[in-house]
Amino acid sequence: MNELIEKTLLFDFYGELLTENQKKIYELHHLDDLSFGEISEQLEISRQGVYDTLKRCYQQLIHYEEKLKLVKQFEIKQDKVNQIYELIVQLKSEKDISKEHIAKYIEPIETIAKSILEDL
Amino acid sequence: MNELIEKTLLFDFYGELLTENQKKIYELHHLDDLSFGEISEQLEISRQGVYDTLKRCYQQLIHYEEKLKLVKQFEIKQDKVNQIYELIVQLKSEKDISKEHIAKYIEPIETIAKSILEDL
Repeated sequence: MNELIEKTLLFDFYGELLTENQKKIYELHHLDDLSFGEISEQLEISRQGVYDTLKRCYQQLIHYEEKLKLVKQFEIKQDKVNQIYELIVQLKSEKDISKEHIAKYIEPIETIAKSILEDL
Repeated sequence: MNELIEKTLLFDFYGELLTENQKKIYELHHLDDLSFGEISEQLEISRQGVYDTLKRCYQQLIHYEEKLKLVKQFEIKQDKVNQIYELIVQLKSEKDISKEHIAKYIEPIETIAKSILEDL
């Protein structure tokens, strides 16, 4: 996965487990797109301090994901919902809507939806 | 929600953030269905110790959920997938499969699937 997307997802999922200070620095860097130097100036801490805090943030977020694997589960589920979405969009544009033909869409959708529901 | 289901979900999501000792006692009580007395005997700790550990487990699991709300998001998503599943099962058993009629199923499924995908 794209590294930026991965970092964003990790932060979306586990960001609330970081300290206020860590969250602030993470957001200044990743959401407000400030450089280490700019953050260092704004918060009156050293550049090294900014670097160390961000490094620690990633380590913690990755640690939570290694333990809980909730981002991974989320991605698997989103992928399945995406398959359902694509099938239903195709079905919508089908000209042939005989019983046999639409079954080619309905049955996989049923199977995929069921697999999401049973994956507790 | 049913209290037992809630506890199970909380443990499924965040259990790996408990200590080994906490997990062991939680599992003995909730999965193996042992009483406080039986756990106390098996692990050679006091009944009060068992009680305190379990109480602390719940507090921590609830704390994680209050911070991250991942169980809540999971339930909202499962509910939406369940709606898709019910619609597709109904569509499957429909006798009238005219274009207009099946649109009554296809359109809500499309909308629900899209709402799951956009809810990042």
